[in-house]
Amino acid sequence: MTNAARARRPSHGPGSLLEVAVTEFNTRGYDATSMEDLSRAAGITKSSFYHHFAGKEALLRAALERAIDGLFTVLDSDGARTGSPLTRLRHIVRGQVEVLVAELPYVTLLLRVRGNTESERWALERRREFDGRIAALVREAVEAGEIRVGVEPALAARLLSGLVNSVVEWARPGPSTLPDDVARAAFEGILPAR
Amino acid sequence: MTNAARARRPSHGPGSLLEVAVTEFNTRGYDATSMEDLSRAAGITKSSFYHHFAGKEALLRAALERAIDGLFTVLDSDGARTGSPLTRLRHIVRGQVEVLVAELPYVTLLLRVRGNTESERWALERRREFDGRIAALVREAVEAGEIRVGVEPALAARLLSGLVNSVVEWARPGPSTLPDDVARAAFEGILPAR
Repeated sequence: MTNAARARRPSHGPGSLLEVAVTEFNTRGYDATSMEDLSRAAGITKSSFYHHFAGKEALLRAALERAIDGLFTVLDSDGARTGSPLTRLRHIVRGQVEVLVAELPYVTLLLRVRGNTESERWALERRREFDGRIAALVREAVEAGEIRVGVEPALAARLLSGLVNSVVEWARPGPSTLPDDVARAAFEGILPAR
Repeated sequence: MTNAARARRPSHGPGSLLEVAVTEFNTRGYDATSMEDLSRAAGITKSSFYHHFAGKEALLRAALERAIDGLFTVLDSDGARTGSPLTRLRHIVRGQVEVLVAELPYVTLLLRVRGNTESERWALERRREFDGRIAALVREAVEAGEIRVGVEPALAARLLSGLVNSVVEWARPGPSTLPDDVARAAFEGILPAR
């Protein structure tokens, strides 16, 4: 939405305020964004803003929770809990990319978090937990003999996370074949020889 | 090097000042770093600093040039210019990871650039040029029938760049098998089934 369009249709619910805030955080950086910036971008007064959110960090927290919740929902889905480790990993990678595309600005914010505030440290901790669960599953797949010999589980888990998360840099919202494409790249190679 | 060690052995050459500056830029963010911060971190006066560099952006430019030069040197190496497109790509990916590890803080800075200053826009333009040359080579490999059917060149080039660049998030300086490991992951899969 352009600034002009936003100015024409100011929206005042907590959901749309969160959306405005995440856009501003991603554009200016969280530290550089003031409540003045946020109320201006939302087209409402600062006091209306405070009616919905206690402050800037409450918005950050709500945005990070949305991204984290989406990702953990994938880990808790049926396909991530049944079947061989490799099947489960493939399901999770697809699901991660789906969440990443569906919640693009929220996951973008999550991936930029550095740990300067309590909410950021909380999010980093949750990300580590998420990555740890994937790493454990990678180890299981290697130990079950599902993976080609020579693959080091800790390195593979890091590269997998790097590949999947890199998608936020250029993905666009909307339906696509991206979840399958990224899964294929992860498990069969980005550039597999014929 | 710890702050204490740095305070004990202040080093005044342009090379070490650049190193100090890149560390500060990566830690605080370029916009948030002042010349005061830089001279304090280097353990010298501001005027000694200005003796070597015209200002903050000159340091940024020198640091970005170092990263960019390293990456383009890979593209211009023999192995990147001879052989089949797929062989050349494999050589480039290995070389990219080598540069990334050898010039870790410089490449980290490069990958965080957003385009707020002229030097940043210059670096973004050079990155686009680099990515464009990789993308062209991926297209050549697909057209030469070297790659498995169904791989979309533009997507593959983006994923390749994402995978390789993600290494800066956790790589440590020093010799390692990382260049080969990342190349294998890119061309055979991060988690190839047995």
